[in-house]
Amino acid sequence: MQERITNKELRVRGYHLDQFGHVNNIRYAEFLEEARCDFFDQFPGFFTRVQDTGHFLPLTEIHIFYRKAAVLDDVLDIRTRFSEVGETSGTIHQTITLKGTDRVILEADVTFMAVDLKTGRRTSIEGALRAVITSVIDECTG
Amino acid sequence: MQERITNKELRVRGYHLDQFGHVNNIRYAEFLEEARCDFFDQFPGFFTRVQDTGHFLPLTEIHIFYRKAAVLDDVLDIRTRFSEVGETSGTIHQTITLKGTDRVILEADVTFMAVDLKTGRRTSIEGALRAVITSVIDECTG
Amino acid sequence: MQERITNKELRVRGYHLDQFGHVNNIRYAEFLEEARCDFFDQFPGFFTRVQDTGHFLPLTEIHIFYRKAAVLDDVLDIRTRFSEVGETSGTIHQTITLKGTDRVILEADVTFMAVDLKTGRRTSIEGALRAVITSVIDECTG
Amino acid sequence: MQERITNKELRVRGYHLDQFGHVNNIRYAEFLEEARCDFFDQFPGFFTRVQDTGHFLPLTEIHIFYRKAAVLDDVLDIRTRFSEVGETSGTIHQTITLKGTDRVILEADVTFMAVDLKTGRRTSIEGALRAVITSVIDECTG
Repeated sequence: MQERITNKELRVRGYHLDQFGHVNNIRYAEFLEEARCDFFDQFPGFFTRVQDTGHFLPLTEIHIFYRKAAVLDDVLDIRTRFSEVGETSGTIHQTITLKGTDRVILEADVTFMAVDLKTGRRTSIEGALRAVITSVIDECTG
Repeated sequence: MQERITNKELRVRGYHLDQFGHVNNIRYAEFLEEARCDFFDQFPGFFTRVQDTGHFLPLTEIHIFYRKAAVLDDVLDIRTRFSEVGETSGTIHQTITLKGTDRVILEADVTFMAVDLKTGRRTSIEGALRAVITSVIDECTG
Repeated sequence: MQERITNKELRVRGYHLDQFGHVNNIRYAEFLEEARCDFFDQFPGFFTRVQDTGHFLPLTEIHIFYRKAAVLDDVLDIRTRFSEVGETSGTIHQTITLKGTDRVILEADVTFMAVDLKTGRRTSIEGALRAVITSVIDECTG
Repeated sequence: MQERITNKELRVRGYHLDQFGHVNNIRYAEFLEEARCDFFDQFPGFFTRVQDTGHFLPLTEIHIFYRKAAVLDDVLDIRTRFSEVGETSGTIHQTITLKGTDRVILEADVTFMAVDLKTGRRTSIEGALRAVITSVIDECTG
């Protein structure tokens, strides 16, 4: 799977900072959520198609690795991609860099699992559900 | 109508600040909302009783007057009270002071109107609806 | 003074909502702040030039008028302009509409005052300070 | 090391929710940050004492495990404790439960490292720095 650069750009504002003049960790959680929304905007109907297969994909983990601090007026570039689709779960990888540079501000792994809408239980990613998810990946790498 | 001091206290954190080291205006909007939630927690069933009269009370205006800046580790005291109930609307007044002092950080007027659930239109605050609202005021001043 | 449409667009996300499925009032305060940042981005050095005149321009009031509710996936268009520059204060007017329509979601007046950096006191908007502020207005309407 | 229950309680509000009526993941990041602030409030001067040893303790990772959804009016109990102090890093463990129950809403591991203020480089947690950190742990378990 190749990386799809979503080109989500975001400028650091005064209200993103903490007492050290650095972007506060809470705001990064929001930037990442916004970038994931933006990512899925590119695949209209994705969540409806998932639901039509009788499943939903709740988040189970967010793991953020802080690399460098971002400061006022920095322009951040947030990249989002599916990095792994396993038996019953998958992972979205996100990277925030300082725009126009290789400076990595943070990386994050966001894990979801497949849940059967009828039973409410964790289930396998196979058949129609796998097809919906891999279609996004194919479109990203096509 | 007398003021009911809700004793909502809140300590200023690093993530509340902006580039000037002051609490950012967005955060005040949140502090005020939280204090209003806290205020109505003291009158369980208030919104259900309003709904039972066939009405709801959407916010129509928030007017915030910034007086002084608050900084890291300040402990803020937020007071909330009904300040006026008119023909078709009412006002909640909120004051944030530095705890243990007379230093006013900000004041706010939050206005709601009465809407008829059936018609979706602005309506008079009278009869059962007025009784529900004034019961809160009586309890505050009793 | 004519209106400058800043074209700040923003899509309503799940995390902007409250229990009624409407954008919560706190989030509007943030949308407006972001749009003001965006507005001033168009005039690089504005705040430095204000400071060079020996002043700063703290916010003194925010007055928001809620007109209609916005819901998930709405695309909002936020317009920001100087609406008035008086003796010692000025006002920025902001309007949020549903993109591509005349539907007004909210309007806001954001008031600032001029403060002398040396005395810390409210002062007149005149001379070099007035020139800096009106240059922005001229650029908006030019 | 035993767990110190910080008794940070928090009630879920409408503005914490997303389109599913669940607390949004961004808000959990904020609840955890607030609870960590609250935890360190119990050890006044902790960060000053760390600084006096010539170090600071930046966050390097936040890893959140979502277990169950929280909904409107839930009262959450957030527990915070040092769970590990290693060679050059340490971990704070946080658990959010539904108050008065064993229902775990989420767990989080928050990792910090020791950085030398002079060199800006990762360094060992030993000597005076270790003493400051373990004094907190001793006070928690004493």
